[in-house]
Amino acid sequence: MKQKLSVVKIGGNVLENEIELDRFLLNFSNLKEPKILVHGGGNLATKLAARLGIESKMTNGRRITDSKSLEVITMVYGGLTNKNVVAKLQALGTNALGLSGADGNAIQAHKRPVNDIDFGFVGDIDGINQDLMHTLVDADLTPVFCAISHDGKGQLLNTNADTIASELAIGMSHKFETTLYCCFEKKGVLQDVKNDDSVIKHINTKSYNDLLGHNIIADGMLPKMQNCFHALQQNVDKVCIGNISMLDIDSNVYTTITL
Amino acid sequence: MKQKLSVVKIGGNVLENEIELDRFLLNFSNLKEPKILVHGGGNLATKLAARLGIESKMTNGRRITDSKSLEVITMVYGGLTNKNVVAKLQALGTNALGLSGADGNAIQAHKRPVNDIDFGFVGDIDGINQDLMHTLVDADLTPVFCAISHDGKGQLLNTNADTIASELAIGMSHKFETTLYCCFEKKGVLQDVKNDDSVIKHINTKSYNDLLGHNIIADGMLPKMQNCFHALQQNVDKVCIGNISMLDIDSNVYTTITL
Repeated sequence: MKQKLSVVKIGGNVLENEIELDRFLLNFSNLKEPKILVHGGGNLATKLAARLGIESKMTNGRRITDSKSLEVITMVYGGLTNKNVVAKLQALGTNALGLSGADGNAIQAHKRPVNDIDFGFVGDIDGINQDLMHTLVDADLTPVFCAISHDGKGQLLNTNADTIASELAIGMSHKFETTLYCCFEKKGVLQDVKNDDSVIKHINTKSYNDLLGHNIIADGMLPKMQNCFHALQQNVDKVCIGNISMLDIDSNVYTTITL
Repeated sequence: MKQKLSVVKIGGNVLENEIELDRFLLNFSNLKEPKILVHGGGNLATKLAARLGIESKMTNGRRITDSKSLEVITMVYGGLTNKNVVAKLQALGTNALGLSGADGNAIQAHKRPVNDIDFGFVGDIDGINQDLMHTLVDADLTPVFCAISHDGKGQLLNTNADTIASELAIGMSHKFETTLYCCFEKKGVLQDVKNDDSVIKHINTKSYNDLLGHNIIADGMLPKMQNCFHALQQNVDKVCIGNISMLDIDSNVYTTITL
């Protein structure tokens, strides 16, 4: 039987609230099996950029990562956020080790090709360094990833944190029974978008198609769900979606997704 | 016979000059044996602090690391510098992995006790995590350290890069034949401080005492040399002092220090 492993992704909103972050990290730290944390972006980099007078560039409503923005992202998520999360986890007895995708060649990517829009220094993932991940996990280390990859030619690349978490879970599922936890602002996938307590406990391929047919999954949830099913189709055992309380053992309100 | 290992420390001045940095990293990358890089501070953090309107606090001419300064240091050295150096080394075929002292509990420290001066969030090193270092080196990874340690209670601490390099070299010398390379702005220890080419090729305990007696080693060189002899007395095999060309195989002008 495979050993269990959890890949947990948190968004920027958690990082900006120290009390929530500490509560989340305590629950994360209490997970007994090997685990990996991926933290997203949020507004911290935008705020620093504003203080430095660096303009957020947008094209057709999409954010562009120019070289100045990439520097800010690398400072805030690769430095400030990542190192503070690692130090907090160390204090909780979890031997955390912070990484960008460049560290140990953990996440190889290429700059997103220019079609309609040049997104700038944004990376699309080519692969995960499974050997590195096994070395770290076997040494009882808990990798903590910021959402930065690299192209192997010296260029760091801003990369979607959900995709990093999903690709890490897929990579680890060869050797581990892997659960991917995606934390966001809602308690789970909602039956009624206006009722925060209408969490659907379990979704599988069949019920997903039903929900799609009834337009219950739409807008922002659609790419999230596609990301989940992509991971499941690539051998990830289970994907759970909920808010940051989902790792609290006293909480059992979140959505579990299986094939 | 022990395997050879190099610990190399570079200062902030190298980091600010991209051409010099690239030249140095190429030479560092060409070192065949296991190696560790430690990069110091310099003016990059001071410049960012100034742009953010954060004042550099001084007491009796000594710099104080308050919480705002520590944030800037963590962003610049833990994030921007560290990740870019790692990405550059990856492009040169060296499997670099960036670390602060919090990552993997690599460098344990305590906040410097307040005597005459409260230096703020400055760390004095208690120890190096040798198991972690061996895990990384055995996996052909090249650790790249920024000059930040932690207290194990969630607090990051600004820490002298020379001391980190020295303590790493001491820690690794139990298992490896270790050379500590300290790069600074001069070609080595100078016989005549006004003549940049008067490099003393070799210093040992006896000749060091002679140089001290003749006041040839004074001022800023004194703590550097004390740091070198401290490392040698703790089993480091050799300490080399010179400028960033010292790792260039075509250059042989630097000072080698042995007991």
